Amino acid sequence: MKLSELAMAVGGEVVGADDVEIAAVATIDAAGPEDITFIANPKYLAKLNTTRAAAIIVAPGVSATGKNLLVCANPYLAYARIVAVLHVKAPQVRGVMAGAWVAPDAVLGTDVTIYPGCYVGAGVRIGARTILYPGVVLYDDVSLGADCLLHAGAVVREACRLGDRVILQPQAVIGADGFGFAPDGARYYKIPQIGSVVVEDDVEVGAATCIDRGALGETRIGRGTKLDNLVQVGHNARVGEDNIFAGQAGIAGSTQTGAHCTFGGQVAVNGHITVGNNVTVAGKGGLTNDAADNQVLAGFPTMPIGDWRKSALIYNNLPDLRKEIRGLKKRLELLEKNIEENK
Amino acid sequence: MKLSELAMAVGGEVVGADDVEIAAVATIDAAGPEDITFIANPKYLAKLNTTRAAAIIVAPGVSATGKNLLVCANPYLAYARIVAVLHVKAPQVRGVMAGAWVAPDAVLGTDVTIYPGCYVGAGVRIGARTILYPGVVLYDDVSLGADCLLHAGAVVREACRLGDRVILQPQAVIGADGFGFAPDGARYYKIPQIGSVVVEDDVEVGAATCIDRGALGETRIGRGTKLDNLVQVGHNARVGEDNIFAGQAGIAGSTQTGAHCTFGGQVAVNGHITVGNNVTVAGKGGLTNDAADNQVLAGFPTMPIGDWRKSALIYNNLPDLRKEIRGLKKRLELLEKNIEENK
Amino acid sequence: MKLSELAMAVGGEVVGADDVEIAAVATIDAAGPEDITFIANPKYLAKLNTTRAAAIIVAPGVSATGKNLLVCANPYLAYARIVAVLHVKAPQVRGVMAGAWVAPDAVLGTDVTIYPGCYVGAGVRIGARTILYPGVVLYDDVSLGADCLLHAGAVVREACRLGDRVILQPQAVIGADGFGFAPDGARYYKIPQIGSVVVEDDVEVGAATCIDRGALGETRIGRGTKLDNLVQVGHNARVGEDNIFAGQAGIAGSTQTGAHCTFGGQVAVNGHITVGNNVTVAGKGGLTNDAADNQVLAGFPTMPIGDWRKSALIYNNLPDLRKEIRGLKKRLELLEKNIEENK
Repeated sequence: MKLSELAMAVGGEVVGADDVEIAAVATIDAAGPEDITFIANPKYLAKLNTTRAAAIIVAPGVSATGKNLLVCANPYLAYARIVAVLHVKAPQVRGVMAGAWVAPDAVLGTDVTIYPGCYVGAGVRIGARTILYPGVVLYDDVSLGADCLLHAGAVVREACRLGDRVILQPQAVIGADGFGFAPDGARYYKIPQIGSVVVEDDVEVGAATCIDRGALGETRIGRGTKLDNLVQVGHNARVGEDNIFAGQAGIAGSTQTGAHCTFGGQVAVNGHITVGNNVTVAGKGGLTNDAADNQVLAGFPTMPIGDWRKSALIYNNLPDLRKEIRGLKKRLELLEKNIEENK
Repeated sequence: MKLSELAMAVGGEVVGADDVEIAAVATIDAAGPEDITFIANPKYLAKLNTTRAAAIIVAPGVSATGKNLLVCANPYLAYARIVAVLHVKAPQVRGVMAGAWVAPDAVLGTDVTIYPGCYVGAGVRIGARTILYPGVVLYDDVSLGADCLLHAGAVVREACRLGDRVILQPQAVIGADGFGFAPDGARYYKIPQIGSVVVEDDVEVGAATCIDRGALGETRIGRGTKLDNLVQVGHNARVGEDNIFAGQAGIAGSTQTGAHCTFGGQVAVNGHITVGNNVTVAGKGGLTNDAADNQVLAGFPTMPIGDWRKSALIYNNLPDLRKEIRGLKKRLELLEKNIEENK
Repeated sequence: MKLSELAMAVGGEVVGADDVEIAAVATIDAAGPEDITFIANPKYLAKLNTTRAAAIIVAPGVSATGKNLLVCANPYLAYARIVAVLHVKAPQVRGVMAGAWVAPDAVLGTDVTIYPGCYVGAGVRIGARTILYPGVVLYDDVSLGADCLLHAGAVVREACRLGDRVILQPQAVIGADGFGFAPDGARYYKIPQIGSVVVEDDVEVGAATCIDRGALGETRIGRGTKLDNLVQVGHNARVGEDNIFAGQAGIAGSTQTGAHCTFGGQVAVNGHITVGNNVTVAGKGGLTNDAADNQVLAGFPTMPIGDWRKSALIYNNLPDLRKEIRGLKKRLELLEKNIEENK
């Protein structure tokens, strides 16, 4: 594909030879004379001069003599789009393959693909062009939108609903029983979890990530939210739109998050709290209480990230701080003695 | 079902119309005129007056004019039981379905159900009424009790034994190799893990939760214990009866816990330690040493939760504490100078 | 097997009866008169006198009257090897079993075993003697070396490559999409993850552990590295040789580790950093920055483990430290007043 065609596709401007042929996208170090690469982070600008790439996607204001540049307002986004253009082919439609079990009353949209080893229960509805990779299990009455990708081994339990363009990575589990038990004297009595899960449009769920069904009512994942691998979402949580949960983060039951929240790796969010819009919790943080809009938090319990950095630095030097205190104590004792003697 | 019949079923007392018809259980906000709801937490008592529910399960001593109440000693437990009565139907017995592979010498109890895509190895024994959802894999010589539910994709490796009424959520893994390697100079030599796992009666294992087999001997999960999703249990751990492990908690190898322990989300329990009865570790805590009975711990390393709250509060204000110390230092220097000059 | 034969097999020396028959390996407490046991930790030496074992593997310098000893330089390693000799049988070769789906163009080595419910995609290559347990899914163009064991439900996505003797525990996921999204104004645009994963020889991957594919280029796990259960490896990470990751640890994208690193349970390693050789991070630690060779670190952010122990101890007594400071303050005020009055 010519560089000029890619520029058209992503809305950028060519500086240099716009008819250079581009075959692939590569990292700036690995790129060869048929590749396009990108610089999204200014600290890598020096590599502009050494890369062998046929063209480089850069932000406005960047120049490089003798290089072919594709100037885009958002180079990282342009890179992502060019990867999609050059490298992603529409998957082949294969229909219901031999070795898949599909209940007779399941309703399948046009051009669905169901690989061997899948199980599609009674009353299931699957939207157009959705693909179930091998070993996907849909319990009864599940509903999937159009253009979903369910990777191998993903499980959706009874009556859960996924919107359009939802992606489940391998082994994702939607709708397992919420963790609810009523103490019955010494033992625990299982509270039947009769709610469900609703996953809205454009959500991605990572590998082995678990979203539990509601005890009563729904657990809900808002439109456009992306959950990384091994994330836990407790029953009746309501995650807002365009949230990001990094790997191994967890959110306990009945908590609600606003739009555009970001939770770093291994973050824990307490149950039964309310998190505002645009709240970020840095990796390993533990959010125990309600959080107002527009904050960046860290630590456990969380505090504003700037404060956390200061506290963490002092923590790492607590022995010195204690020495300082003990030093003051000795000087104080000396003074006290001195004054006592001079009375 | 009439309210009076539900009262009989759960051992409560009706205040109000005992012939009102109840169709379903709902949350106090969502309940309509055919629903029963519950108030287990006194802070929601104000909602008694606004709920549209046909009846409300409450604790003794609560009253509300014009409302139908079901008074129970333990409202939360009564709610759980009523959900079971109204919403849970006995699953249909389906036998060994087409597309399931069952070894010829496997011994199946009466009324088992084995869905398509399951694999049942040689020498396996399955108790009466147990259900294997699609894609469950039982390696050779596994033994399952009666009335177990193994959800889609659950795996039980060779020779592991589950008691009666055990529930495995989707993707649970019982009996993977323990993590044991002997350093052999620069490299690691794999120690064959020839032990097994015993899961006692009434245990529930969450989605993608992993219980490793013993190196030699057993890993054991005590009767009635409930493990949430994504929990890790190391080889040769012995978890006591009626323990609770919340999501993403982990317990390392060869550790033993007493009865009625509770571990919050993302808690880590060290290997080779002994934990007493009735020990609770709050979320994100890290228990590194033996713990005596009847404690509530928090932090890492853990301390009594009251102490942790105080330390955490000071931690979050360490910069102020340091300022205070530096202030004292200046005043001390001033005094010292003052005294020196006045000698 | 005679003790003398075991001694030959593992390179040890018998003290006592070298013709005693050994049937099995057992723990020192459980061992009976046909078992061999071991003492790898000197703190258990007292049990030498009470064990009923037929023989005990010990380190040089240990003696015990009337006991049969197998003296080995590395008793733990000798134990591991004897377990392999006495307890591990070569698995039966079963070929492609009925109920497995194998693409016509897949290339299978000699003596492979593929259980029912497996899916082997187009262009896949599988080395000799490799075993796929039930429900394993290999997407198109996957390549597996010889003598691999892929346990039930393991998934390897398109074009990922595993070396020889690689073990995947149940539900391991190799090659799920890396977690990459480009902000597009308010929403996130998915960056197609077109890289792959390379798992080198002798790697073991724990149950439900996830190794994401590169965005561009590879994610790589070095020879001999062992990952425990529920571990997360982000896209384009490059884990060195002979690393150990304990349960629920995670390493974010584009980070590189040297040889012989060890990461404890629930450790988090930040993205885009470089970790040297022989770096250990104790359990629950969080490594945020580059780390030089030969360090043992702990805490979050990490510091040398000795310092962390000191800081953690002070943290647990912060209220006392504050009291000390407040006490000093009062004494200082008294002195100041005293001096002021005596001027």
